Amino acid sequence: MNGSDSGTRGNSEYGRKPFKRSKSHFADRITADGRDGWPVEANRYRLVVSRACPWASRALVSRRLLGLEDALSLAVTDPIQDDRSWRFTLDPDGLDPVLGIRFLSEAYEKREPGYSGGVSVPAVVDVPSGQLVTNDYQQITLDLATEWTALHRPGAPDLYPHAHRDEIDEVIAGVYEDVNNGVYRAGFAIGQEEYRAACAGVFRRLDLLTPRLERQRYLVGDTITEADIRLFTTLVRFDAVYHGHFKCNLRKLSEIPTLWAYTRDLFQTPGFGDTVNFDHIKRHYYQVHVGINPSGIVPLGPDLSEWLMPHHRQELGGRPFGDGTPPKPVRADEEVPLPGRP
Amino acid sequence: MNGSDSGTRGNSEYGRKPFKRSKSHFADRITADGRDGWPVEANRYRLVVSRACPWASRALVSRRLLGLEDALSLAVTDPIQDDRSWRFTLDPDGLDPVLGIRFLSEAYEKREPGYSGGVSVPAVVDVPSGQLVTNDYQQITLDLATEWTALHRPGAPDLYPHAHRDEIDEVIAGVYEDVNNGVYRAGFAIGQEEYRAACAGVFRRLDLLTPRLERQRYLVGDTITEADIRLFTTLVRFDAVYHGHFKCNLRKLSEIPTLWAYTRDLFQTPGFGDTVNFDHIKRHYYQVHVGINPSGIVPLGPDLSEWLMPHHRQELGGRPFGDGTPPKPVRADEEVPLPGRP
Repeated sequence: MNGSDSGTRGNSEYGRKPFKRSKSHFADRITADGRDGWPVEANRYRLVVSRACPWASRALVSRRLLGLEDALSLAVTDPIQDDRSWRFTLDPDGLDPVLGIRFLSEAYEKREPGYSGGVSVPAVVDVPSGQLVTNDYQQITLDLATEWTALHRPGAPDLYPHAHRDEIDEVIAGVYEDVNNGVYRAGFAIGQEEYRAACAGVFRRLDLLTPRLERQRYLVGDTITEADIRLFTTLVRFDAVYHGHFKCNLRKLSEIPTLWAYTRDLFQTPGFGDTVNFDHIKRHYYQVHVGINPSGIVPLGPDLSEWLMPHHRQELGGRPFGDGTPPKPVRADEEVPLPGRP
Repeated sequence: MNGSDSGTRGNSEYGRKPFKRSKSHFADRITADGRDGWPVEANRYRLVVSRACPWASRALVSRRLLGLEDALSLAVTDPIQDDRSWRFTLDPDGLDPVLGIRFLSEAYEKREPGYSGGVSVPAVVDVPSGQLVTNDYQQITLDLATEWTALHRPGAPDLYPHAHRDEIDEVIAGVYEDVNNGVYRAGFAIGQEEYRAACAGVFRRLDLLTPRLERQRYLVGDTITEADIRLFTTLVRFDAVYHGHFKCNLRKLSEIPTLWAYTRDLFQTPGFGDTVNFDHIKRHYYQVHVGINPSGIVPLGPDLSEWLMPHHRQELGGRPFGDGTPPKPVRADEEVPLPGRP
């Protein structure tokens, strides 16, 4: 999630220009063959996320499903940025215990001295050098799925199966434009027509996806794929922040039966809901975007107790992990609060 | 609805002090015996409202139910105030055709030269002198029900029946504090705890009212009373503005089955829904309160098509108009758009 740059329009930037998501600035890839100078290697890299951020949360889900927790360590930022962007204020003494830095921007600075652009999550940092390797949110999860295979757990699912890549790419392109980024275009719109088009586009795309999800348990094929991960991280935030804060309020997700059951199904699948922290989500959106919510007040709602209700999606068939198996439980040091429990 | 005073905190006032609703400044009463100098008289007074405002809308409903349209004429302001508060910009040349004024403040000024306090609706203006008589939103509807009886239509219901006044007074006191005004205290809160207490209070009161409305069709007795009018004008706005804009988002009204059916029942009763203009409501709240919504963007949602769905409340019995009859259809010059139709 873009912090200080135009990716998420801060208060001072609010109202000046139409919302445009920044392209990632650091697009090196960590690959099996190390062709960009960053070979896949256990215990070398650190994944930096905010649990508030839908883009970073894709990597949280992929890392869990693929069992990369022991190979790729995790740093979780404070959901509230200050003017130096993402901070390690949740850690003892405000320092990331592995990187030894207070602000993610320090890893950007190590990579490019004098860098003055946006600081965003997800970010992968090279631990030995302390340098940012990549903040390319569109590529990171694809590489976790396809380049990090040597470090996957036994039974890891294939999240980007060759046989379905064209269909996955098509689905995620539409989901990106209208849903993942569409909610931001609605929320950060400065004009009524800009907002209207974005909000209508969100619901038009959700309507388009619904017949597909009435027929089959997952978006593409009969297993969980990258496409589900990308739709999930937006939908799980829908009623908590996009409905009210971003004005995507034609309907709540909980008022769209098929999509609501689909999202609950994923939420209850190991690797999805166990990465979600609604407190981080709500505080980030409502307290950081003071251009939209000047008071910084965080709403009490919505009621989260229904996330764990039965979804009956298994009646559609499908094999969540294909020929693989579910991931093991979350590590004790990465547990998140259960929804509906304070 | 208070305009320029602290009753609804304008942008410049936002964030300075806890929300406190102004007491009405002009509390003369129009009575059958004329003891305050304002006797009930046909065609003498003009009711000035905004259809956006829940306080003014009480008088719109009472006037319809009691059949006072021909005795008490109606001026409808633009839902958007400017720095001179409520305006007659919807009328030809921006002039109220009866009072001949551009701003409601001119009637306040006629009443009290040099007046610099808040300008609020509902307001009743004496047409011959052009003076404001009263803006006492708590008293106006009670007087329409009990003092204007000589001008009521044949078959007008008794909206404040003697046998039930104690119970009505008790119900409306709690509804006022927690619901009618509670949504404003939530929406205009400047601190998290001020908001939390107000929002929790809204839903606590709605929960308290629910068993009563599971047993009986109306709040008090078996007929429509003042208590229903006062709860209705807040609930009809709930999903359109209080849920998102004022952050009363534990649940939508449409997610509370008993109250949602109760409100739809009233909405579909002649005299209630035919006074409601959702466009005025949404534009007023989202465009005027720039301290809460700096962009002034008006959300597309919620979907209004379900307001006309069956409510099945008649199965509880009850006699909407008691020994009376429903009001006749709305005058052509006072029609409002049907919800769900652009």
